Amino acid sequence: MAQQDRAIRTRRSILEAAARVFGERGYASATVEEILNRAGVTRGALYFHFSSKEEVALGVLEAQLPLDRLPERSSKLQKLVDHGMVMAHRLQHDPLVQAGVSLALDQGARELDRDAAFRAWTEQLEQILTEARSQGELLPHIDVTDTAEFLTGAFAGVQAMSQASCNRADLGRRVSVLLRHVLPSISTPALLAALDLSPDRGERVFEEYEANSPAATAPVTQG
Amino acid sequence: MAQQDRAIRTRRSILEAAARVFGERGYASATVEEILNRAGVTRGALYFHFSSKEEVALGVLEAQLPLDRLPERSSKLQKLVDHGMVMAHRLQHDPLVQAGVSLALDQGARELDRDAAFRAWTEQLEQILTEARSQGELLPHIDVTDTAEFLTGAFAGVQAMSQASCNRADLGRRVSVLLRHVLPSISTPALLAALDLSPDRGERVFEEYEANSPAATAPVTQG
Repeated sequence: MAQQDRAIRTRRSILEAAARVFGERGYASATVEEILNRAGVTRGALYFHFSSKEEVALGVLEAQLPLDRLPERSSKLQKLVDHGMVMAHRLQHDPLVQAGVSLALDQGARELDRDAAFRAWTEQLEQILTEARSQGELLPHIDVTDTAEFLTGAFAGVQAMSQASCNRADLGRRVSVLLRHVLPSISTPALLAALDLSPDRGERVFEEYEANSPAATAPVTQG
Repeated sequence: MAQQDRAIRTRRSILEAAARVFGERGYASATVEEILNRAGVTRGALYFHFSSKEEVALGVLEAQLPLDRLPERSSKLQKLVDHGMVMAHRLQHDPLVQAGVSLALDQGARELDRDAAFRAWTEQLEQILTEARSQGELLPHIDVTDTAEFLTGAFAGVQAMSQASCNRADLGRRVSVLLRHVLPSISTPALLAALDLSPDRGERVFEEYEANSPAATAPVTQG
């Protein structure tokens, strides 16, 4: 295995261990020692990749950022829907994405810039909404920043409630309900009827995404 | 001071101390010792009121339940709006309410029935939506359970984002944005124009509530 592959594997196993420790104890009470023990790596290996517990946490937060290169759609509101649905799918299946979202909601993590996680999502959605506006897809009174911020916050809470209720088993359905409650307030009526808001949309779009970008999603542990 | 007043004061100071400890360390890492020290009460006093850390946490979770006896409105959707706006106001001003909401979102608190907090809100909103339906205020396709669950989750996330961004200073505005994005999808159009969704609504309704029920809200520490 090339040295670079090994470094990528080590970084990933540190992040996965940190995700479990943060999830069990909360950020504030987690220690670098516990992360080392769980990951089975040396202190030197950890400090090669991360200078502090905070930096490890920023690595975990990164895992929940919006995916680049989701398939393009002629309707930009469909692309907006796809981002939400794919995120629901990733949250159901990727422990690192789950840990990133939990950290963003962890009020005990005072030294972390948790707001950055929310801002990244807001900016992504704002950009898609601006494209939708330029194509005439939005109702005229919409403020794209307000809508993007609201969607980010609403999604965060809906997934938290789904996690508390059934470990996110019904998250696809809940995000579909969210979209059916919000899109009539932002989309032109004719487009609304053409959008696919079905609960299993996320899985289908994620498969399409993976087929188009094998390099980005191949498991790094198969070196 | 009567013995009963003293017991109520002690219970409240234990809950306030627990709220601070849970807020700083997360539920999983908080200890009964820390809560005792912070509250300045004896172990015997704590166990007189609560049998375990979990029971203290359930007391904190109770603080964020919907208020009974909010002023009645001829429009039940206005009453729905008022519940959200008053909750935003309480979250800005009452540390115990803040701690209750944080606990409901604390994924590290595995032994706690956090879902009960979400269910209590969902049931309250479901009841108001059912009243609204019987008065002809809802669009015909609305499923009151879906709408109540979605509103509960969306509110939880919007307040978390406001907390991360500015310690909830803008929460009234954000809840107003939430309602403007959702009510057009559930309310009949004629009623929609008559609803008061303004950001300072919560403060005004909470003052009205306090004027109507002085006993319920008098500070227990002035015995």
